[in-house]
Amino acid sequence: MNEINLKPIGFVKNNIKELRFGNFADEISEIIVDEKFTEALNGIEDYSHVIIVYWMDKVKDYAITHRPQGNPKVPIVGILACRCPNRPNPIAITTVRLIEHKGNKIKVKGLDILDGTPIIDIKPYWPQYDKVEDAKIPDWVNELDF
Amino acid sequence: MNEINLKPIGFVKNNIKELRFGNFADEISEIIVDEKFTEALNGIEDYSHVIIVYWMDKVKDYAITHRPQGNPKVPIVGILACRCPNRPNPIAITTVRLIEHKGNKIKVKGLDILDGTPIIDIKPYWPQYDKVEDAKIPDWVNELDF
Repeated sequence: MNEINLKPIGFVKNNIKELRFGNFADEISEIIVDEKFTEALNGIEDYSHVIIVYWMDKVKDYAITHRPQGNPKVPIVGILACRCPNRPNPIAITTVRLIEHKGNKIKVKGLDILDGTPIIDIKPYWPQYDKVEDAKIPDWVNELDF
Repeated sequence: MNEINLKPIGFVKNNIKELRFGNFADEISEIIVDEKFTEALNGIEDYSHVIIVYWMDKVKDYAITHRPQGNPKVPIVGILACRCPNRPNPIAITTVRLIEHKGNKIKVKGLDILDGTPIIDIKPYWPQYDKVEDAKIPDWVNELDF
């Protein structure tokens, strides 16, 4: 399988300096994209929510199976059956509220990532693609900290 | 900004041989992950929906602004304010119904990608992260083919 190369389009600036589980709902982050992508944000202010796609650059190795958040109430599952960071490709997606757009910067609320994390894409939240009314999840997911 | 390297974890097998807009709801696709990741799928069968993260390998260049689907009812917007493929990093996410899990394969319904597309991640759909009740979108999104 061929290697894929990509470059960050920008970075996050916020007050989250250490990893933790959950409790990010009120965090305000700024995402600063490279100035050459300033116009690529045109019209993003017409959305209430965006999906931030980022590279978890602190993850140095992957697990095949994993107990999410080390929580004893939670089973060991495959890494592709949870949202934990230690994935073969440590790419994550987080849906957040968009607060402001100015030039090459957006301000968002609820982002759960470390200051300085490289951003690889920003996508508007489209309910047609992203909203599932009747999703079934295993009960253990409700034991986790969000 | 440093380059990021990743490797596909698998590939899609389906009957979609040419790109088109919309009408993928009934398409059945098989995702075959590398055998070394077989156990990374343990427990995925407990979910009704998964998010497929993939590399749009047919995209050769990016746009800064773009008229989605070339639809004359739709404005020209920044590429980060739509879900079109010509992004700086052509990574896409599609949420689909999970039909079956057997060994290193899953079968899904509604995937909108070409046969042979490289898969870079599979994530379970967690409503806590992925479901927004009150998302606001610009009206033009409703003019597109889904």
